Amino acid sequence: MKIIKTIRELRTELALQKEAGKTVGFVPTMGYLHEGHLTLIKNARQENDLVVLSIFVNPIQFGPKEDLAAYPRDFERDCALAECEQVDLLFYPSVKEMYPNPLTVKAAVQQRTDVLCGKSRPGHFDGVATVITKLFNIVMPTRAYFGKKDAQQVAVIEGLIADFNFPIELVAVDTVRETDGLAKSSRNVNLLPLEREQAPILYKSLLAANAAINRGENNPIEITNTIKDMISKDTSGEIDYVEIYSYPQLQPVETVAGRVIIALAVKFTKARLIDNLIIDIDC
Amino acid sequence: MKIIKTIRELRTELALQKEAGKTVGFVPTMGYLHEGHLTLIKNARQENDLVVLSIFVNPIQFGPKEDLAAYPRDFERDCALAECEQVDLLFYPSVKEMYPNPLTVKAAVQQRTDVLCGKSRPGHFDGVATVITKLFNIVMPTRAYFGKKDAQQVAVIEGLIADFNFPIELVAVDTVRETDGLAKSSRNVNLLPLEREQAPILYKSLLAANAAINRGENNPIEITNTIKDMISKDTSGEIDYVEIYSYPQLQPVETVAGRVIIALAVKFTKARLIDNLIIDIDC
Repeated sequence: MKIIKTIRELRTELALQKEAGKTVGFVPTMGYLHEGHLTLIKNARQENDLVVLSIFVNPIQFGPKEDLAAYPRDFERDCALAECEQVDLLFYPSVKEMYPNPLTVKAAVQQRTDVLCGKSRPGHFDGVATVITKLFNIVMPTRAYFGKKDAQQVAVIEGLIADFNFPIELVAVDTVRETDGLAKSSRNVNLLPLEREQAPILYKSLLAANAAINRGENNPIEITNTIKDMISKDTSGEIDYVEIYSYPQLQPVETVAGRVIIALAVKFTKARLIDNLIIDIDC
Repeated sequence: MKIIKTIRELRTELALQKEAGKTVGFVPTMGYLHEGHLTLIKNARQENDLVVLSIFVNPIQFGPKEDLAAYPRDFERDCALAECEQVDLLFYPSVKEMYPNPLTVKAAVQQRTDVLCGKSRPGHFDGVATVITKLFNIVMPTRAYFGKKDAQQVAVIEGLIADFNFPIELVAVDTVRETDGLAKSSRNVNLLPLEREQAPILYKSLLAANAAINRGENNPIEITNTIKDMISKDTSGEIDYVEIYSYPQLQPVETVAGRVIIALAVKFTKARLIDNLIIDIDC
């Protein structure tokens, strides 16, 4: 595995490989790799000749009051894990390398952002779409891998690829969970011990909602109330949102039918966790 | 010359050529080609193995009160001219091909837009940057050619390429003029006969300003007043702006020194004309 810190060097490496006709699988991350990331890498490894992993904690997708400084980092451990998963090129640029000057242009997300995480994180998805636009143009991969855990991000990237005509296939990979059901996340390490015990309730509440839907419940308010009650009762977390939308359009629904996302975000002392289920309901 | 109307077909054509290692020169236009465009094509022809010309009147860069419907079109003539200039691929997509769905993401220009044409055309450069982002990702050229007549556009595209990390070389080509000095433009055909006679005053006023600078004048207000006086006195046009900025940053200057742009826009009955001089002044 080669560790590459400059755009110029990465392009030189990739040009050689692409001339040889190799396909490139790209996994963009902010590092502190967990099994979710490793699953993305495994998928990329299976489906492409070359695997590029990027590790870059993107400052412009954090709000002024958000946890940029607290975002966990462990580059040496990440390197070891990436090597194990047979990553070919690890792109690890500095902030100065990615943003040498103030931006004169950004990718501005027009839809799918005023709900879920977008609502409480103004500008977050502009930051995501901008850095992904940059990384796509730097790596120019055949396929790019994203986790369904960040379902709104997947919906936004789907729009970005279509609207900016990137010749890239988006591969959305299922959420990886701990044995107790908690979705894997770099932020889980910031949970207090008691909070970590409570956190599996988030996924259990989604499963309970799914069970209710299977029993015929189709009122989104009833369903989200079921979830909210469970989380309020059994965790010390503060509910940020519990919402149901059509997917991937992320439009409100009056009746739960067709393809929908049930998504939630809960704030714990030092970590804000998200989770979701995307389900297809026969109409 | 092949005329291609779909993104898929263009990509297939280009993939074959790129596999063979050919360089691609790209000239994006809105059609109604004049000598300015042909000069861009000639430059692209000299410097690349393959030349791609696009003709697409981009609706999203026109404001609600602007001349989208009045924008002149003559596809047959354009084809003949492109063929003469040995264009290899002419990309001529429909609006539906370029914008099949409402945009979920756009390129939003953050700087260099609140002056010159940007000030009176809110959203214009977002529309330009968005369509150029799309076209760059569709064509993926080695070099892209733009005319210095649209100097603010060149400044914005320079920022777009840098900020979005497009692996594309921008080539800015000198303004082509009629023998009487009028900058070539598709909009010149919309001038009334008397206005066409007066229009060369625009360039003459820029030359007069340049002469004043060469005589030692360095006050931007004095210089722009000289230009405004000439245009008011000798044309029936209505001055939209006459401004001086640093280039390419497009920041106001208190003293005319270093690299600056003197730019103007004048409204005639059915056409709004722009022109500029970019000059380097020894400090």
